[in-house]
Amino acid sequence: MGLIVQKFGGTSVKDAERIFNVARIVTETYSKGNNVVVVVSAQGDTTDDLIEKAAEINPNPSKREMDVLLSTGEQISISLLAMAIEKLGFPVISLTGWQAGFVTNSNHGNARIRKIDKERLNLELDKRNIVIVAGFQGLNRYDDITTLGRGGSDTSAVALAAALHADLCQIYTDVDGVYTADPRVVKDAVKLDEISFDEMLELASLGAQVLHNRSVEMAKKYNVNLEVLSSLEDKPGTKVKEVTKMEKMLIKGVACDNDVARIAAIGLPDEPGIAFRLFSMLAKSKVNVDIILQSIGRDNKKDISFTVPLSQKETAIKCLEDVKDLLKIQDINADDNVCKVSIVGAGMQSNPGVAAKMFEALFEADINIRMISTSEIKISVLIDKEKGKRAMVAIHNAFDF
Amino acid sequence: MGLIVQKFGGTSVKDAERIFNVARIVTETYSKGNNVVVVVSAQGDTTDDLIEKAAEINPNPSKREMDVLLSTGEQISISLLAMAIEKLGFPVISLTGWQAGFVTNSNHGNARIRKIDKERLNLELDKRNIVIVAGFQGLNRYDDITTLGRGGSDTSAVALAAALHADLCQIYTDVDGVYTADPRVVKDAVKLDEISFDEMLELASLGAQVLHNRSVEMAKKYNVNLEVLSSLEDKPGTKVKEVTKMEKMLIKGVACDNDVARIAAIGLPDEPGIAFRLFSMLAKSKVNVDIILQSIGRDNKKDISFTVPLSQKETAIKCLEDVKDLLKIQDINADDNVCKVSIVGAGMQSNPGVAAKMFEALFEADINIRMISTSEIKISVLIDKEKGKRAMVAIHNAFDF
Repeated sequence: MGLIVQKFGGTSVKDAERIFNVARIVTETYSKGNNVVVVVSAQGDTTDDLIEKAAEINPNPSKREMDVLLSTGEQISISLLAMAIEKLGFPVISLTGWQAGFVTNSNHGNARIRKIDKERLNLELDKRNIVIVAGFQGLNRYDDITTLGRGGSDTSAVALAAALHADLCQIYTDVDGVYTADPRVVKDAVKLDEISFDEMLELASLGAQVLHNRSVEMAKKYNVNLEVLSSLEDKPGTKVKEVTKMEKMLIKGVACDNDVARIAAIGLPDEPGIAFRLFSMLAKSKVNVDIILQSIGRDNKKDISFTVPLSQKETAIKCLEDVKDLLKIQDINADDNVCKVSIVGAGMQSNPGVAAKMFEALFEADINIRMISTSEIKISVLIDKEKGKRAMVAIHNAFDF
Repeated sequence: MGLIVQKFGGTSVKDAERIFNVARIVTETYSKGNNVVVVVSAQGDTTDDLIEKAAEINPNPSKREMDVLLSTGEQISISLLAMAIEKLGFPVISLTGWQAGFVTNSNHGNARIRKIDKERLNLELDKRNIVIVAGFQGLNRYDDITTLGRGGSDTSAVALAAALHADLCQIYTDVDGVYTADPRVVKDAVKLDEISFDEMLELASLGAQVLHNRSVEMAKKYNVNLEVLSSLEDKPGTKVKEVTKMEKMLIKGVACDNDVARIAAIGLPDEPGIAFRLFSMLAKSKVNVDIILQSIGRDNKKDISFTVPLSQKETAIKCLEDVKDLLKIQDINADDNVCKVSIVGAGMQSNPGVAAKMFEALFEADINIRMISTSEIKISVLIDKEKGKRAMVAIHNAFDF
């Protein structure tokens, strides 16, 4: 008995049958004596349909109005799920993002949660209502509707769990947990019972597509116990939590991220402040830079290359062009025919053989490495896009899972 | 130059083309130097689609959750219209009902507007923004979304015009004004240049389907200048306003209302308080009673019959059954195979021949009258449903339009 936050994605509520499936999971949890707060996304293709409607009218609408439009998707879901739970005879109330007290900054389309005013939530929980909250959305200080951008509903759920000091935050998806690699690509992939926040973070940001990194970052920050599990199968998923015991070398997973473009600024002067000016320009344009490589200076020249999400490629190029003269950039080039394959695992740093093993596996599969980036718990390589799947299989085979 | 409120119904914004048509009307009005507040309904069939979605899940959902669901329809419309106006290069902002300050009571599905907090509206108008407001919706004092029920968007528009002291409230529809009869039924029907609030009220409540009576009542109360006009043709419509000059006998229109059921309570004791108790029961169940007839008492028994909207027939019958024993009702019967045909005109009362002429026209068309109700400016008869159109034509022919 406690307080449990459950989050269901768009496919989990895509039609009446799936909505009742969710209603059953929720009411079973409630019947065990728990208080339950449920976060839902927009149904199936609703968001895409709304985006299409907008595109028909204005290919470049203001982000504020897009948020007004898109936020209706979750509002439809919460009411329908509430109706299903009413039908099952349980006390329930739906709350939009603003009704649930989500206060965000004003970055429409990609807003950050500032705080959650818990008054209404607590009022409804005190009444022993099941509370259904629209994910992905909030309100800025001008009382305008905002949306949280990609992975927003996961983040909504974790933020609620943190604010309400929930005992558990369950993220229901269409997979039954976190795997050592995408099971659709690597058939030997193994489901993990447990993973640490840091490992999950690396996996999430690398395109494992189970949990968005924003939500994992927040879960780590507020120490929210997460569980990733399937809404279609009644079995334990993967627990994501602070792991204290140091384990032996253990690769937790292999992931491939196709949403990546490589940008290069060629022939920059080899002098201080260049990188600073370049990346602060990109930050101002809200470009999310991932891997950064700077060549060794030679003949007073250096090259800086970096990766960005595909959707930000044009913005990044424009940024560079704007400062081309100022920073004396000789040439700018971009390549989106790449993908990023990574391995993640907590014990990696203390095991020098890991990188070598990974590179060997790629070499034997005849895959050329174009960029390398390492952190304490992951190693990423940038390779040709069409070799991504083959690389994952090769690396997965090289390690013991 | 002034402040103009313009309202567009669901068919006027049903697709991208129609939305741009509305955007053009709005921006032309704005370009003449006016401040413009626009009220829109949900697109075309959106509301019906949402109702169907709900019905699939729960045939009897709570009205609160229905309001959460249905209010998304107008929210989609406001954002799309705002995007179209952005495309045309004008400053614009969309506001949901609650953002626009609509405070209502808690009668979900049929809420009444209590007040409009004008702070946000005035802020946006001061910035010379075109303000697009979601019709049909508001917020109760618990911060729950409410909807205003039938004719809600018209009422939203008139309420805004009253609150903002607008110079004019234009209701754009798919007809070009108010006619002496439904032009689809009576081919000789004539468009009126002008009509008084009272006459419009009678026509509206009788199913002329141009303006909902709630909005006309409100316009009369706050003396809001209304104009009904077509969103597809650029020509003057019908002005609805306080008419002071008393005109000669003038029948303003003939209308037929099919949304009516006749309920009868047979064999009640002929004693004081019976009607009071009966109708206070119905009022408590929020049944809108229209025509009431009470038979002359005989053998200490009387009959009371009344009409209600079709949708409230079952509720009314249930009400009567609940008090059947208490009020010693011998029998209850209901008939929904009826319609109400009415003529409306300000000079009617002082012209005793009007009723006779109407009844004669019906007699000659061999149409039996089942109930009669008169007011200062209208005469209504209840007849068999299938004879409604024939009755309208016969009456329209009998009077000079």
